[in-house]
Amino acid sequence: MEAINLKKKECKIVVAVDESQESMYALSWCVGNFFSEKTTNTLVLLYVKPPPPVYSSFDAAGYMFSGDVITALEKYGSDLVNSVMARAEAIYGKFSSNMSVERIVGSGDAKDVICNTVEKIKADTLVMGCHGYGFFKRALLGSVSDHCAKNVKCPVVIVKHPEEK
Amino acid sequence: MEAINLKKKECKIVVAVDESQESMYALSWCVGNFFSEKTTNTLVLLYVKPPPPVYSSFDAAGYMFSGDVITALEKYGSDLVNSVMARAEAIYGKFSSNMSVERIVGSGDAKDVICNTVEKIKADTLVMGCHGYGFFKRALLGSVSDHCAKNVKCPVVIVKHPEEK
Repeated sequence: MEAINLKKKECKIVVAVDESQESMYALSWCVGNFFSEKTTNTLVLLYVKPPPPVYSSFDAAGYMFSGDVITALEKYGSDLVNSVMARAEAIYGKFSSNMSVERIVGSGDAKDVICNTVEKIKADTLVMGCHGYGFFKRALLGSVSDHCAKNVKCPVVIVKHPEEK
Repeated sequence: MEAINLKKKECKIVVAVDESQESMYALSWCVGNFFSEKTTNTLVLLYVKPPPPVYSSFDAAGYMFSGDVITALEKYGSDLVNSVMARAEAIYGKFSSNMSVERIVGSGDAKDVICNTVEKIKADTLVMGCHGYGFFKRALLGSVSDHCAKNVKCPVVIVKHPEEK
């Protein structure tokens, strides 16, 4: 037989979320297209924090970081996670109520963490924004979605924010 | 409001099909995930023929092409279209019966034709294989899905054949 029926009953769909409007749009697209009252898919929100900074006791200018500054930086990081997850919840909460949602917070290089997580949890689909904000950002950030599209084995959906059209 | 409900009632979903097993797998994935008895989406099968060959009267070795050869080449091209569309039909035919299907046969450079067609018919989603067959083919062919993912404005799904995992 040429092709098999690929629709599993329960799919695990990973959405890579970050602070960007684009990733929230990708989440919204994902929920609208992959979830309904009848589906029993699981939505996995994956947020990748930047690699833990190496807190040298001295900053670039040679001044010492106080413990307070380090704590503030760490708090900023966890505030960011909470803020992104809250924004995400505001989006998927509007849709189907019987949605199973998991949250994963990784840390490190986004493209590696995303690829590894998708592999590890045996995700069925990865949905992410494209970060197509123009040449400069695309060159820098677009490489995340490029890299994932090439390296992840499951289907990858790249969603662009309509304002970028 | 952060994000809008992106699920339109009727979506136009383009699947770029070609002779590859991978594109048939992408079609199967697409039908399994985007179509059900309840959806009223339209499936658009897009096949791109290579650019029409410039039939020089002389081939590379300087011999003249007879009219018969040219006719045979043209027939081969249309046989290929029919064969791909028949394989596609065997796949989507197994799914929901009330599926609206359109066929588009383009000609030219695949990446340009795909991007232009998606734009022209205002498609909601583009689904395509990745052609990730390994370094050499990826370098040559992967560029089609790369190019489309970057240039098409609607969400793009890149599906890999599981054997390539």
